[in-house]
Amino acid sequence: MSVQNRSSLVSAQQVRESCRAGEWTNQTSGLAPSFAQANLVILPQADAFDFLLFCKRNPKPCPLLDVTEAGSPVPNKSAPDADLRTDLPRYRVWRHGQLVDEPTDISSYWKPDFVSFLIGCSFSFEAGLLQAGIPVRHIELGCNVPMFRTNVACQPAGKFHGPLVVSMRPLKSADAIRAIQITSQFPDVHGAPVHLGFPEQIGIQDINKPDFGDPVPVAPDEIPVFWACGVTPQAAVMAAKPELVITHSPGCMFVTDLLNESLRR
Amino acid sequence: MSVQNRSSLVSAQQVRESCRAGEWTNQTSGLAPSFAQANLVILPQADAFDFLLFCKRNPKPCPLLDVTEAGSPVPNKSAPDADLRTDLPRYRVWRHGQLVDEPTDISSYWKPDFVSFLIGCSFSFEAGLLQAGIPVRHIELGCNVPMFRTNVACQPAGKFHGPLVVSMRPLKSADAIRAIQITSQFPDVHGAPVHLGFPEQIGIQDINKPDFGDPVPVAPDEIPVFWACGVTPQAAVMAAKPELVITHSPGCMFVTDLLNESLRR
Repeated sequence: MSVQNRSSLVSAQQVRESCRAGEWTNQTSGLAPSFAQANLVILPQADAFDFLLFCKRNPKPCPLLDVTEAGSPVPNKSAPDADLRTDLPRYRVWRHGQLVDEPTDISSYWKPDFVSFLIGCSFSFEAGLLQAGIPVRHIELGCNVPMFRTNVACQPAGKFHGPLVVSMRPLKSADAIRAIQITSQFPDVHGAPVHLGFPEQIGIQDINKPDFGDPVPVAPDEIPVFWACGVTPQAAVMAAKPELVITHSPGCMFVTDLLNESLRR
Repeated sequence: MSVQNRSSLVSAQQVRESCRAGEWTNQTSGLAPSFAQANLVILPQADAFDFLLFCKRNPKPCPLLDVTEAGSPVPNKSAPDADLRTDLPRYRVWRHGQLVDEPTDISSYWKPDFVSFLIGCSFSFEAGLLQAGIPVRHIELGCNVPMFRTNVACQPAGKFHGPLVVSMRPLKSADAIRAIQITSQFPDVHGAPVHLGFPEQIGIQDINKPDFGDPVPVAPDEIPVFWACGVTPQAAVMAAKPELVITHSPGCMFVTDLLNESLRR
């Protein structure tokens, strides 16, 4: 297997082909940077309605970019030549809430009643922030965005329920205002922030101790700004402990053919 | 002269006719609430270019809704049947920076080289905030909005220069985010805030001591949000001490035929 060079992976199709060939098995951050990346949740049809309803009821943390036909691994809307069984770098297979495998191909797990959900990702709006000259701390530091469970409950649907999970980006005042404007233009990838300024108001006790991702410093002249996060549906699925669920491995997203800019409203 | 009842003044034309008849000589807040109200600055043509350039260079505090032809008292774009010499409740006449008269009609002062500037007013975006269920503190309290001189200098133009003046509205986090979205849709009436969260960063020493208007309380769970204010151009004109300038009397605005909602982008 040849080691693929990141710089050769500039189109979404190139990333997917490299994953399909088993060549790229790492995180996708920074690959094909013009294209929207997505969180993946695959569920048997028996659980699909409740999960779809959960996403519908909680659109800010669960913005659906695409939902496949039952049994089809092809996301017709977001990447019609892709195969969700092979085109991600790495997957996680969970049975009754337990991680049982972390393969680079899920063809052997595939069942004719699987429904795949592609959920928008903050990478897309971060591209918009960077384009506008707004510094994004965790990108500057080369670490993962800090994420927090909040005391805000999602609207439940069937077996799926749980807290809203948020990501946090510290911003100076003028950048916070501009970031609200820009991310409001991206409703399909979490949209506007859900909170700013008072972490304790949403149940965050220590801004330096995220529940997921890495801590980043908040300077005295900065405001912590919180966006709904795609970890929310992942956490709701995990908490529901369905018989079988397959997700992307953390950071190893599905790269769609949708240009980030095409998601700007 | 009959005392006009506020409730009969629901259209812009009704307000203007009542002013023209000398019947309404009070503040216009709450009158014809669907219609955009405007700050008025009238200058001789010799000063008009510099002032127009000042507005152009400082669009957030000085959003121009209309500029008349020299000598014409008719704002063709915003109220083609109006007469700016008679249709405001009360005016202020300034010579070399000194207030010399506060008439309800400026026909006797009119000169063939006068240029009138109508500058958008926050009443318009406050209507949008209230419609969206966002409480506006100074409206709740029935007082004037607190306004502050900042340490941010406007871009000068000719004789016109001065600090950015801002208005402040305290808002809860979610309302602040929504207010940024809503006011971003009203670029012709000051648009998005210029600052939030840290008054001292823009040179405001005491949030309880506004330079103009009335103080309003900021609760511990609220963020002070600052918008560019139409007092900015007024202050720049006063500081320039032109030979002659006529403005509206504070709070006695010109009521245009433009619906507030027509200003939403």
